[in-house]
Amino acid sequence: MTAELNRSSGTDQPHYFTFADPPDELTLESGEELGPVTLAYETYGELNDQKTNAVLVLHALSGDAHAAAFHQGDNKNPGWWDGMIGPGKGLDTEKYYVICSNVIGGCKGSTGPSSTNPKTGKPYGLGFPVITIGDMVNAQCHLIDYLGIEKLLTVVGGSMGGMQALQWMITYPERIRSAIPIATALKHTPQQIAFNEVGRQAIMADPNWRNGDYYDHSPPPDKGLAVARMIGHITYMSDTSMTEKFGRRLKENSDPSRFDADFEVEGYLRYRGDNFVKRFDANSYIVITKACDYFDILGKKKMHEVFPGVARAKAKALLISFKSDWLYPSYQSLEIARACKLAGVDASYCEVTSTYGHDAFLLEVEEEGNLIKYFLETVNGHEVSHQNAE
Amino acid sequence: MTAELNRSSGTDQPHYFTFADPPDELTLESGEELGPVTLAYETYGELNDQKTNAVLVLHALSGDAHAAAFHQGDNKNPGWWDGMIGPGKGLDTEKYYVICSNVIGGCKGSTGPSSTNPKTGKPYGLGFPVITIGDMVNAQCHLIDYLGIEKLLTVVGGSMGGMQALQWMITYPERIRSAIPIATALKHTPQQIAFNEVGRQAIMADPNWRNGDYYDHSPPPDKGLAVARMIGHITYMSDTSMTEKFGRRLKENSDPSRFDADFEVEGYLRYRGDNFVKRFDANSYIVITKACDYFDILGKKKMHEVFPGVARAKAKALLISFKSDWLYPSYQSLEIARACKLAGVDASYCEVTSTYGHDAFLLEVEEEGNLIKYFLETVNGHEVSHQNAE
Repeated sequence: MTAELNRSSGTDQPHYFTFADPPDELTLESGEELGPVTLAYETYGELNDQKTNAVLVLHALSGDAHAAAFHQGDNKNPGWWDGMIGPGKGLDTEKYYVICSNVIGGCKGSTGPSSTNPKTGKPYGLGFPVITIGDMVNAQCHLIDYLGIEKLLTVVGGSMGGMQALQWMITYPERIRSAIPIATALKHTPQQIAFNEVGRQAIMADPNWRNGDYYDHSPPPDKGLAVARMIGHITYMSDTSMTEKFGRRLKENSDPSRFDADFEVEGYLRYRGDNFVKRFDANSYIVITKACDYFDILGKKKMHEVFPGVARAKAKALLISFKSDWLYPSYQSLEIARACKLAGVDASYCEVTSTYGHDAFLLEVEEEGNLIKYFLETVNGHEVSHQNAE
Repeated sequence: MTAELNRSSGTDQPHYFTFADPPDELTLESGEELGPVTLAYETYGELNDQKTNAVLVLHALSGDAHAAAFHQGDNKNPGWWDGMIGPGKGLDTEKYYVICSNVIGGCKGSTGPSSTNPKTGKPYGLGFPVITIGDMVNAQCHLIDYLGIEKLLTVVGGSMGGMQALQWMITYPERIRSAIPIATALKHTPQQIAFNEVGRQAIMADPNWRNGDYYDHSPPPDKGLAVARMIGHITYMSDTSMTEKFGRRLKENSDPSRFDADFEVEGYLRYRGDNFVKRFDANSYIVITKACDYFDILGKKKMHEVFPGVARAKAKALLISFKSDWLYPSYQSLEIARACKLAGVDASYCEVTSTYGHDAFLLEVEEEGNLIKYFLETVNGHEVSHQNAE
């Protein structure tokens, strides 16, 4: 336990990779150009000589590159998927070289709305271009090129991370040997869009947001961003997990005559909202939720027309969802499985029993880790026997 | 159809009933006193000579006394339950005398935070006392006394209206021959509290809210209230009904480069939010959602200890829920049914198949209306045979 607690991700984390310096900007799906582009990323484990053991971990809406272990001198904040990544864990760093990169549009070291626009010398604000999941993945592919990795053993992530995994399957099937989209969807539904939109509206209703041009002003739109995060938190939990965690217990010193937070669940939401604004940028919240809402890899295609490239590339897929997840319900993962099967992709699906709701992809690391561990062994085995046969 | 369209609720609607003039204030469950108290109410149909055909309709969070028909000179805004109340409908105004009263704490003609505090001569604002569902029902009972009705044929309502129906069963079982709590719960769960709390936080985050003291200022906290209403609307619909209504269709003239509302569902939510602020008071939203959150008629009681008074009074109960309602899921109505049965109450339960989500209690009036119609016939029949036997 002590050894585990001291497990550090190294002195040099996160790393920063900058590319697309003008005039060689990254062309976005909208046609707009963005450059230079910096990606913050972390790595855990060692890349083998053949460079065949690399795993790309893809984070969700509010995640970042810090997926595992502790930064040196900080033993309080493990990475967001530390239960999954490490020696002997689902993503075993004694076997695999694990990479996690922050997305573009973000605010945790990568180029986003709070970065300086080289054309103006000021922060982009909402002058930052519209970003898609495809743009995020294209930027990641530049990083993978830079790291000299031709083919990733797998791409894996939950929620928006799962969308990126699906996008890798669509755009770069030849660059992956497998993909593990978790608790995600082929496209955002109107309900998913609606929850994001209300969050954006809460931010935009905050007069401190100033149409996104708040970086030179104080305070930032913290109240609006906190409300957005509170909405998010409700959707990440389940009716059951909230009842288990809070019931109808009252806060200490609650005073019902003041119309204030009386119930523990209210105090918890306010705490999570207030904490979030310390570490996240409101414009990034807008840009990234919009990227999720635009996500629709089905579009006008029929189900069997989504993943033929994955089948040709002989990449495998593992799909995971969670029983109490009502934000990305299991039927959406079953749709992905169906699209895979109809294209001839070697895909399997598992629904994990959990009461945690959407948060389960972060919390049910034991069962989820075993599913991933055994799946990656078959991917490795398949590749080996395939090579032997040639 | 024309006759139906011209069906007016009369020239004198709504009515206003004022009571609890100081020093005879209404004592609230908190111990605080409130007076004078005005209730806005409407009536449809005729009270019979025996005064045995009165039905009390109880409205939800944003409802009001205008439950049916049109106000004279306005053929655009039928009452909120017009599909249920009228000649030949579920609540047949040729048979029943239907009363609908606005709740205290509200803003549609009844005493609430926007009313003048007689002690200060200014609007109460958040100096308005904390109100419970019990207080709402106690005020309604004064109205029923005033109308000279000893025993209501039934009390019926959905959502918060269902809570009031349950409260009538608890507080005044001898004053009702039956109750029809629809799409409601014995107590608010932390998830239900959480959605309300985020709505309240959105209002309180609006600087125009001014701690509730905004009546002498302009503008009122419209942006915060609109966000609160948008959150509500998502919870009133279902994943399926949103997909059926909007899909991923884009708005006309949507411009994805502006981070604005692109999807129809976004435009719809903004429209509903903006419309709501024209007809509702932000402080009433806070006061009434708090009343719902405090609602817990189970408390520390065992299930069989909730409704013994209803069994003794031989009042019947009909419980209705809707399959796609995830805000007040069917399991909560089943809990009410169980508590009724364990106390020996003559109760029946029906889950209506619908994709409308929580809104179904307003929309599925045909099936819901038949359930209510046949139930009220058995209530009437039961009473008749009971009287004959005496």
